[in-house]
Amino acid sequence: MDGDKIGKADQVMQNPQAMAALQERLESASHTPSTIMDSIPIQVKRRVNALKQLQVKCAHIEAKFYEEVHELERKYAALYQPLFDKRREVVTGSIEPTDEECEWHSEGEEEDELAEDMKKKATVEENKEDAVPKEDLKGIPGFWITIFRNVDILSDLVHEHDEPILNHLQDIKVKFSDPGQPLSFTLEFLFEPNDFFNNVVLTKVYKMKSEPDQTDPFSFEGPEIVDCEGCLIDWKKGKNVTVKTIKKKQKHKGRGTMRTITKQVPSDSFFNFFNPAKVSGDGEALDEDSEFSLAEDFEIGHFFRERIVPRAVLYFTGEAIEDDDENFEEEEGEEGEEEEDVDEDEEYDPKVSFQLHYILNVTPGFP
Amino acid sequence: MDGDKIGKADQVMQNPQAMAALQERLESASHTPSTIMDSIPIQVKRRVNALKQLQVKCAHIEAKFYEEVHELERKYAALYQPLFDKRREVVTGSIEPTDEECEWHSEGEEEDELAEDMKKKATVEENKEDAVPKEDLKGIPGFWITIFRNVDILSDLVHEHDEPILNHLQDIKVKFSDPGQPLSFTLEFLFEPNDFFNNVVLTKVYKMKSEPDQTDPFSFEGPEIVDCEGCLIDWKKGKNVTVKTIKKKQKHKGRGTMRTITKQVPSDSFFNFFNPAKVSGDGEALDEDSEFSLAEDFEIGHFFRERIVPRAVLYFTGEAIEDDDENFEEEEGEEGEEEEDVDEDEEYDPKVSFQLHYILNVTPGFP
Repeated sequence: MDGDKIGKADQVMQNPQAMAALQERLESASHTPSTIMDSIPIQVKRRVNALKQLQVKCAHIEAKFYEEVHELERKYAALYQPLFDKRREVVTGSIEPTDEECEWHSEGEEEDELAEDMKKKATVEENKEDAVPKEDLKGIPGFWITIFRNVDILSDLVHEHDEPILNHLQDIKVKFSDPGQPLSFTLEFLFEPNDFFNNVVLTKVYKMKSEPDQTDPFSFEGPEIVDCEGCLIDWKKGKNVTVKTIKKKQKHKGRGTMRTITKQVPSDSFFNFFNPAKVSGDGEALDEDSEFSLAEDFEIGHFFRERIVPRAVLYFTGEAIEDDDENFEEEEGEEGEEEEDVDEDEEYDPKVSFQLHYILNVTPGFP
Repeated sequence: MDGDKIGKADQVMQNPQAMAALQERLESASHTPSTIMDSIPIQVKRRVNALKQLQVKCAHIEAKFYEEVHELERKYAALYQPLFDKRREVVTGSIEPTDEECEWHSEGEEEDELAEDMKKKATVEENKEDAVPKEDLKGIPGFWITIFRNVDILSDLVHEHDEPILNHLQDIKVKFSDPGQPLSFTLEFLFEPNDFFNNVVLTKVYKMKSEPDQTDPFSFEGPEIVDCEGCLIDWKKGKNVTVKTIKKKQKHKGRGTMRTITKQVPSDSFFNFFNPAKVSGDGEALDEDSEFSLAEDFEIGHFFRERIVPRAVLYFTGEAIEDDDENFEEEEGEEGEEEEDVDEDEEYDPKVSFQLHYILNVTPGFP
């Protein structure tokens, strides 16, 4: 057997054409990602390349599609706005919804009973009116801070010293860029007058790109966030939570005496969200930490836009968080482990939900 | 300590109001998903319900948005079609692309060299023309079957006896429902004349729903597939791979003699895709197996529509499969494990991609 193999290898070595073919096969194996492309004849490979050219054209058409979807989103943002305005008014207590507006029948029958029960109690309690001091019950106290606490990627950002400030947050809005302008969206955080800063609104702009990358057109999956910009917070004296003052002891070189100096250093705070790392414009590469924090920032901006702002009340009650968890489990299932999981899962839910095709790549635009 | 606790418990037990409050708290804890709703005063709860009513209105606006996106997709389907037609012509060999159409420069420089190399070789080989028999090299042989083999959820469906049939597959098309019609899309599988069945096209219709569920409006995340319908395959005699003939021995009750009978039983085959389980229309619930196979079927239909048909060549070369894997890894990262992963990962890729908000729920419409 071995002798036979060696014999064949010798034959190949002595045949320049066979050697060249072997060489080519080895080379292409190390360069192209798939084995299919290595094993097909060169004439067919040509045609596959023709299909790849067509595929690039498809990517450019897809880019136009996403631009039109963005336009649709602008159009619908205007339709949602009256409802969001009403939400703000209920949250801040500037309007009191009517009984009819407050009716809510939950899914299960038992819960319906509970709702009935609640309605009765509410009436009783309103009649009493002495149960809790009135001023504490204006609107929905702690609406936004509760959402920040309920959502993991936000609660990670919020520190103890941020909470009293976020208690003054009254609304978060999403504004889309105007037609003809470069694609972007702006998050507006509206605050009531407070003891911490003079701004009425803090803004964060996310700039997007919706065109295939020239060097890698097939990775295009829709609009990408490529940059963001915060705003200057006009802190009142001594209230800036994004810096802290530390004391440092210094030794005099010559005399050896000690002195204490104070120094301001950055401090972890949600409000650093308005002072993000800069996407390098001058060709200098960002360090890995900045890249990572920027990618995380883009993800958070996207989350505000896509989930928090459109569905705030469900993040307040926690209902949306359950849904998000469910979706995630089901997406895992997609990858082929579903069949095994199902047997173990007593209450199998036949819902399989997954993304249609409207993807947002959150990509720092590094070189 | 223990005595103290018992004392307090006694006090509660003797106070009817406190008991009622405790009772209420226990009840609501078992009924509502979140703890927030249990801990807020009833007056505030009312306002939260008002926000939930507003949220339902948002869900209905969102449904209209998705209907308009569907219209956009119809519009863009017409723009893609000439490119897909050209793809079919290249795949089947009815046109031969020009040299210019076949140019392809890969990402890396090394690969560029390889491409140059390839082009030279292609010319040489074309001049020789004797390397491989011409008829084997019409178009891109095995284009679709290769895609089926490359994609896990499809290769699971394809059995050995399906392969010679799928070799005759020439194109897969997606057709969207006309405006004003109930939302649906149809997959059309176009076959060249073959020895297996008489159909020129096999169809699978997926019916969709794009409105919030009355009993659970907050679960709405866009269009859902709710039903599907296959087609009758006109198999040629003895060629139906979805059934197999088995021999069974039977013993005569009285005489005790044996006889052999033949019986047709269902056989695993890709072509069962055109004979899916029925979504129950008459209120009868599906069994768990059927629910599961239907959910899987919806997922496959969605995958054909969203990935395979628009990007077939990338599933042929394998490029899209790598991309899909990447996306999945990054989605996992989103759930908060990213920070840990990054340190271990030598080549950290700052791309974070995740779904924007265009979700397709693939939900069998069971009661």
